[in-house]
Amino acid sequence: MEFSEKVRKCGLSPMRKFHPLAVAARQRGRRIYHLNIGQPDIETPQAYFDAVRRFSQPVLEYAPSPGLPALVEAVRGYYAGLDIPLGEPDILVTTGGSEALSIALACILDDGDEILIPEPFYPNYNTFVRATGAAIRPLPTRPEDGYRFADRARIEAQLTPRTRAIMVTNPGNPTGIVLTPEELRMLTEVARDHSLFLIGDEVYREFVYGGEPLGSLLQFPEAAEQVIVIDSVSKRFSACGARIGALISRNQELMGHAMKFCQSRLSVATLDQVAAAALYSVGPDYFDAVRQEYRLRRDTVMEQLSAIPGVVCACPKGAFYAMAKLPVDDTEAFQRWLLEEFEDRGETVMFAPGSGFYATPGAGRDEIRIAYVLKQADLARAMDLLALGIAAYRQSRMGMKP
Amino acid sequence: MEFSEKVRKCGLSPMRKFHPLAVAARQRGRRIYHLNIGQPDIETPQAYFDAVRRFSQPVLEYAPSPGLPALVEAVRGYYAGLDIPLGEPDILVTTGGSEALSIALACILDDGDEILIPEPFYPNYNTFVRATGAAIRPLPTRPEDGYRFADRARIEAQLTPRTRAIMVTNPGNPTGIVLTPEELRMLTEVARDHSLFLIGDEVYREFVYGGEPLGSLLQFPEAAEQVIVIDSVSKRFSACGARIGALISRNQELMGHAMKFCQSRLSVATLDQVAAAALYSVGPDYFDAVRQEYRLRRDTVMEQLSAIPGVVCACPKGAFYAMAKLPVDDTEAFQRWLLEEFEDRGETVMFAPGSGFYATPGAGRDEIRIAYVLKQADLARAMDLLALGIAAYRQSRMGMKP
Repeated sequence: MEFSEKVRKCGLSPMRKFHPLAVAARQRGRRIYHLNIGQPDIETPQAYFDAVRRFSQPVLEYAPSPGLPALVEAVRGYYAGLDIPLGEPDILVTTGGSEALSIALACILDDGDEILIPEPFYPNYNTFVRATGAAIRPLPTRPEDGYRFADRARIEAQLTPRTRAIMVTNPGNPTGIVLTPEELRMLTEVARDHSLFLIGDEVYREFVYGGEPLGSLLQFPEAAEQVIVIDSVSKRFSACGARIGALISRNQELMGHAMKFCQSRLSVATLDQVAAAALYSVGPDYFDAVRQEYRLRRDTVMEQLSAIPGVVCACPKGAFYAMAKLPVDDTEAFQRWLLEEFEDRGETVMFAPGSGFYATPGAGRDEIRIAYVLKQADLARAMDLLALGIAAYRQSRMGMKP
Repeated sequence: MEFSEKVRKCGLSPMRKFHPLAVAARQRGRRIYHLNIGQPDIETPQAYFDAVRRFSQPVLEYAPSPGLPALVEAVRGYYAGLDIPLGEPDILVTTGGSEALSIALACILDDGDEILIPEPFYPNYNTFVRATGAAIRPLPTRPEDGYRFADRARIEAQLTPRTRAIMVTNPGNPTGIVLTPEELRMLTEVARDHSLFLIGDEVYREFVYGGEPLGSLLQFPEAAEQVIVIDSVSKRFSACGARIGALISRNQELMGHAMKFCQSRLSVATLDQVAAAALYSVGPDYFDAVRQEYRLRRDTVMEQLSAIPGVVCACPKGAFYAMAKLPVDDTEAFQRWLLEEFEDRGETVMFAPGSGFYATPGAGRDEIRIAYVLKQADLARAMDLLALGIAAYRQSRMGMKP
């Protein structure tokens, strides 16, 4: 028996790659500060749990395949609040943003097709694209340029006859880049001019720290046929375990095809949909407080990160990640060393090594992604450990003078 | 912009095809008896809702990608009770049986590959297989033979160089066939002899009405490398809306590949996993009572169905479906007529037309699937309506004498 070519081209998650070493380190008594996984520590709004407890139907039935009407309406209301009018047929509830993306890609990609994605990118995109038989064509960026990619000529230079779509994460994971309205417009123009779908993974929309208005590709109705938005309650309401997302597009032919996949998997979890609808009742105070907390965390990380000699990093404007180039030879080897050999007062630190965020072979080897999802004091200590670790590693493994 | 070839080959659900006509009929005041959807009316065990209400973590976090340890352990314990020893690495928790199947197929099928499935089969298999780029090769059966398919020579005659797997639903949806231990063994031998994966969709395992011991392809350890089982709590505990399933196999290379997909979608809904684990605390009394209830329903349906002149049907031994050949020209046209023109005391009936359960063009046009998921009195009335409808349709549309 053989396995499919598509699965053989997939890999395990780079964020979870060092999990066994972390378990072993903890067994040796190490305390580990986790900057490797984007699991926020912000409390889920009580509205979620209240709605779950109020549920009183005796049979936990399938929900409708396109989503519970109450949740679809809540999502519609949220977008109306952003001056983005949507109809109910423009929204399909999905099992997390992950399923929304899987469905969107399956609707547009075949064996041998390409999708253009700026790199570094969220590593799971690899698996979602490979599952369709297609491949990611990376749009290269540089840490020295702050990973910026929104340049029309550079994008068009990467398009091929097999390119079917462009996908951007905005705000960016792992880079924290927030696209300006002009950059968003440029992307819609490229998509229209080249008859490409334009997928916006906008699950971090609320997490912008410069007072920017919340952006979306859905703000360009002239690109209604091209634009597909991946949405989720996971980060918006710190409800990652709900697995509630949405596929949003005004392209009704696309939505008709997507419905085939929605019907085949029957429905999204009923209770989680009921509770997710209740999440949308939280007011702007909730978002203001969360945004303020993450902004302080970002500032803490950036202050310490930029003070480490040899580190190249740009200040992230959104999401809760920072990508940085470190003065080490190989951040995977460095991570392994941090877990197996390093400690300071019994503590060490984990990040996500950069190479997993790249499709270009060899790229990102000296980079890392930091998820600033810890409390400020813990973040400060984690960044101290990173600085101490870099210095010690350079001395013991790279022959640098102290 | 074009859509993928794979999605263009998929269709909408035949079970939901007549939904708009049903809505219109209800608006005209019709009461409809729904025999078209396998949504049981049995109450979900209270343990589910109790567990949900007890959940007290302030942050609804991602669960581990392979599943919550408590649920994996509960599934392991359930199989141990069937004398099927499983290790924790043999089980991956999935979003319903649907996701388990999608993941299994993506691990083994590429563009142009084939999977052999006896027809009639669960129509959503089409979409799951098409999503991989592969196609279903149907193993034909006949209503006159009770849809039996487990014949070694007939199976081997359908294998081609592109066949990668055989899939069976046991107990069967839509046929209600329950494979004997000898038939299960024969399937494992065919799979081994031809180096094929053997996928058993066993989500109806508890629903057998002849006192048979519960069967599974996992009972044949000599086929550990071939066998993949699709499991779910949906039917077992009448918890369809939980969307909790499992992918089970002792083939560790397969499970390693499947883990790539599990990691890419991060996790299955946390609360539903906590609650699904609690479901496994219900005792054998629960299953006995449910089985007894469905047996009575089946007997009600079969007594009336077999009394309708011209109907060909075999008594289903399991699941909660009956497949039947009707003395009408086209069951889709008949269903449309039942919703648009027929009524008896303001009532009518819906079933699932047969052609959607076939891959062979034109097959199943005079067949239907009946889901016996209603209370006995409602089922009896629904079958009366079916009998009245057949007689009236034959008279008014097919020119038969009354």
